[in-house]
Amino acid sequence: MADYAAHRGPGGAPGLILNVAVLGVGMHIGAWRYRGDDAATFADIEFYQELGRQAERGKLHAVFLADTLACAEENFERPNLGALDPTVALTAIAAVTKHVGLVATASTTYNEPYNLARRIASRDQLSRGRASWNIVTTFVPDVAANFGGARLPPPTERYERAEEFVEIVIKLWESWEPGALVGDKASGLFADASRVHRLDHEGKHYSVRGPLTLPRTRQGRPLLYQAGSSEQGRDLAGRFADAVFVAQNRKDEATAFRNDIRARAAKFGRDPDHVKITPGFLPILGGTVAEARRRKEELDSLGGDAELRKLALRVGVPVSALDLDKPLPFDLIDANPDFRGSQGFRAAAIALAKDENLTVREILYQNGGGHPQVVGTPEQVADFIEDWYRDSAVDGFNLMIDVLPDGLRDFVDQVVPILQSRGVFHHDYVGETYREEMNIPVPV
Amino acid sequence: MADYAAHRGPGGAPGLILNVAVLGVGMHIGAWRYRGDDAATFADIEFYQELGRQAERGKLHAVFLADTLACAEENFERPNLGALDPTVALTAIAAVTKHVGLVATASTTYNEPYNLARRIASRDQLSRGRASWNIVTTFVPDVAANFGGARLPPPTERYERAEEFVEIVIKLWESWEPGALVGDKASGLFADASRVHRLDHEGKHYSVRGPLTLPRTRQGRPLLYQAGSSEQGRDLAGRFADAVFVAQNRKDEATAFRNDIRARAAKFGRDPDHVKITPGFLPILGGTVAEARRRKEELDSLGGDAELRKLALRVGVPVSALDLDKPLPFDLIDANPDFRGSQGFRAAAIALAKDENLTVREILYQNGGGHPQVVGTPEQVADFIEDWYRDSAVDGFNLMIDVLPDGLRDFVDQVVPILQSRGVFHHDYVGETYREEMNIPVPV
Repeated sequence: MADYAAHRGPGGAPGLILNVAVLGVGMHIGAWRYRGDDAATFADIEFYQELGRQAERGKLHAVFLADTLACAEENFERPNLGALDPTVALTAIAAVTKHVGLVATASTTYNEPYNLARRIASRDQLSRGRASWNIVTTFVPDVAANFGGARLPPPTERYERAEEFVEIVIKLWESWEPGALVGDKASGLFADASRVHRLDHEGKHYSVRGPLTLPRTRQGRPLLYQAGSSEQGRDLAGRFADAVFVAQNRKDEATAFRNDIRARAAKFGRDPDHVKITPGFLPILGGTVAEARRRKEELDSLGGDAELRKLALRVGVPVSALDLDKPLPFDLIDANPDFRGSQGFRAAAIALAKDENLTVREILYQNGGGHPQVVGTPEQVADFIEDWYRDSAVDGFNLMIDVLPDGLRDFVDQVVPILQSRGVFHHDYVGETYREEMNIPVPV
Repeated sequence: MADYAAHRGPGGAPGLILNVAVLGVGMHIGAWRYRGDDAATFADIEFYQELGRQAERGKLHAVFLADTLACAEENFERPNLGALDPTVALTAIAAVTKHVGLVATASTTYNEPYNLARRIASRDQLSRGRASWNIVTTFVPDVAANFGGARLPPPTERYERAEEFVEIVIKLWESWEPGALVGDKASGLFADASRVHRLDHEGKHYSVRGPLTLPRTRQGRPLLYQAGSSEQGRDLAGRFADAVFVAQNRKDEATAFRNDIRARAAKFGRDPDHVKITPGFLPILGGTVAEARRRKEELDSLGGDAELRKLALRVGVPVSALDLDKPLPFDLIDANPDFRGSQGFRAAAIALAKDENLTVREILYQNGGGHPQVVGTPEQVADFIEDWYRDSAVDGFNLMIDVLPDGLRDFVDQVVPILQSRGVFHHDYVGETYREEMNIPVPV
């Protein structure tokens, strides 16, 4: 509990960060069949706006949207986890909310920095200071095929480009100094040109002149989330990120990860308290443990063998190599050095399996979609959150809700009040912007 | 009045199309100083949502948003005409409206087809079938500088790329057959994979595999607007466009343009009635002519010499070559064969000036920002609209309102009822989608 004080939110309020991560209509593969309404609602405005309203009712810090730039085989079995452009979905949410942060995942590999900087800044303006960008570099061959061919840049190049990309985006966001928009109607001075700056960036991968079409936003600039836990990803986080999304299945490893990112931030001359680590966490709630387990079993029965296939993909072996009642085939996993998927998800699943000597079936039970999972009562879910938080393993969590929006409503009704009464989670929003809610000043 | 019947809307309703074009806080250069509220509201959500509400109150067909991918010198003098990403602004409008169409300008030169197709389809899903894309190829050197360097593709290459780009976007929008999203919860069949198709497009400029992340939208696919009246632009319109935005300052030339596009559509095997031509039109309203002129003069006095400089840019001569009390310097204009601006705007201004033997001052009076302008009473504005419409010079207009949102509110209160009582404009929305309102079936 050494640096628990570091977690404190604005005004000394409890600083636990809770976001809702929106992947399709819920993190569980059976979610679309479990839900009450039409299967097409994953692309309906009311679905997203209801999520925003529920998140804000629960005083959550942000709605976090995934992004998928391809339609793969698995998307014929259930909704694509990031079917809609996140900017569009989050703007629809912005229109019916006032406080909740809006985090959109977007790829540095398949966007142009000027377009992306402008799009996020536009969202930041229209949400009055609530936008965040979750930086990903994208490692999916299906995506590469939609963007000019099968070439998938190797990780080193991807991250080199990402670093230059992020630098440009930040410079564009800051190309108008605070106050450069004068707006003096009497004199006719709209903007002070001497306080608006070109970038004239000529780098290895990009050439961007600037300035941006938009002035500085209310929160200084949008927050940067980072996802990806490879060596290069961690460095990117240490250098730039205000917050990090990661898969961590064990408290000790989560602690080590958090310490590592904080150390990297310090190495880059930053205050480690200004980088918040929020791993994914999957609560499956019931009034009793038995009830929660029934919910999980019903969801599993609706998901077919999709969870098994997803695990196979995650660790990089064919599904036929997995036996529900045996351990993971570590020899096969090690024999695949060309693995191009997420290093973070693979490492998390392997660590969990090895450490607790789990069968494949047991992994699927504890490791919901690659993240730690508690199938239990609101108190048990609150216990897990509080335990990791108080021990400084995390600054908060991205809640990977099993079924949306119902699972979120249950969390808000049942878990949030417990965390509030325990003095861990704030009782209300206190800031004007997402940056203020996160208690992270604008980096200098 | 030969084919006035062709204009008829759904159910035989009057078929005049009226959109509001949103460029900054109004088409007039002095708009930002004339308005009552803060100069920063051009980037505020309430400004855009109020426009949507006013447009819908007036039963207008669409809100049409400009796009600018650069910040130029003139943007220090007044709001950038397309500062915000149009997708973001239109989604905010979608959230508070039910019927009005949402047209976003986007460049084929500075986007990737997969990203753009997905973004527009996302907007179409969340607006429940109201999205449209205004296709532009972009000819601004300032923009090129923000995207990898100073290279500005020559028109032929721009349009060749545009054609391939549009083909891909349409195929992506149609990659899920109608009904491919089955959503049968009992059997667990989410989508029928046999009815979702890859493109496997391998063209000269793009390689895109597909399919899109989203199923077919409610209106079949988003409408295609096209802007640009060069030879290649017209062919693109004839081949693909559901509607065309153009600058036309004379009724006879507008008629010729409309006939030309209709003929090109027929040449491509399409029904000419399925391409709607809606030039820009700038009404400046007053209770009396004197009142309207006072409004115009006040706006002009707030605009400084910006209108003059804009005209110089539009015809491709230095501002010093223009004398308010003399005709345009046609010799200088002709001596600039490398002119890279909009051919349509230049031709429209020159035709008007030559035909009516106007001084520069008179051009600025009749040619508001490159479009025909009526400074007068609601009846006079209605007369102009009705005259061009009944004579089949146009299918409708993009209203380039002088000052937003006030000028739009005045138009809705004062001009719309006149057009309705004359049987020219519909009394209410009758369709479920923007495509139905426009009475344009999904192209086969």
